Amino acid sequence: MDRNALERIYRGYIDCLNGQEWSRLAEFVADDAVHNGRPLGIAGYRAMLETDFASIPDLVFTIERLACDPPHVASRLLFDCQPKNVFLGLPIHGRRISFAENVFYRFRDGRICEVWSVLDKAAIEAQLAPGH
Amino acid sequence: MDRNALERIYRGYIDCLNGQEWSRLAEFVADDAVHNGRPLGIAGYRAMLETDFASIPDLVFTIERLACDPPHVASRLLFDCQPKNVFLGLPIHGRRISFAENVFYRFRDGRICEVWSVLDKAAIEAQLAPGH
Repeated sequence: MDRNALERIYRGYIDCLNGQEWSRLAEFVADDAVHNGRPLGIAGYRAMLETDFASIPDLVFTIERLACDPPHVASRLLFDCQPKNVFLGLPIHGRRISFAENVFYRFRDGRICEVWSVLDKAAIEAQLAPGH
Repeated sequence: MDRNALERIYRGYIDCLNGQEWSRLAEFVADDAVHNGRPLGIAGYRAMLETDFASIPDLVFTIERLACDPPHVASRLLFDCQPKNVFLGLPIHGRRISFAENVFYRFRDGRICEVWSVLDKAAIEAQLAPGH
């Protein structure tokens, strides 16, 4: 698969997430997908995303920056949202926060089979600090 | 610049860091380099790295995963080290920790001009938790 085809697939995946079109998720995610070392499979991956949208009702995935280099996609995603309760162990309780996720995906046969994600927790902590 | 040339330059940059060859840093980093929104310039960038090595004497940058897509490189770096004192606000005090950094670089004329880095602070916190 060439770079541009992989980018189109990845952008389709992000559109699928933002539309919460869970019935289409298997077009983009492999049956045996692994997320940060956890063998979630497609069902666990969907459950993870549904939990994210339940706890962050205004969740939107925005691609700020992409590096497509088959079989890998690396993406810098930006979030500006109001998690309802505790998020990453931090007491957000509806405050508006902004943060980035730098994430690597490995694709196999056009679908995500492995994900290595890091969320910028320190940036959120700085927004919760007194005087911010 | 093509993908493979960019990868060679990036691997040269990582070798330069691991060798602490600061006199060569300007081969890889632009005069006006920006790191996580901070306009450090080459002098500030070098100072940041020298501070890192001073506080983490056994610091080694290991590339686990790369996505080269000119003008961007995205890299997943792994660290296994013993920071001397407080690191990312966490009381490490010489404990051995392992963590990843997912980082994007934008290159201009073969040198890094902008960096967006996220360290996996949550992974370090998990290693400091009781019972780990």
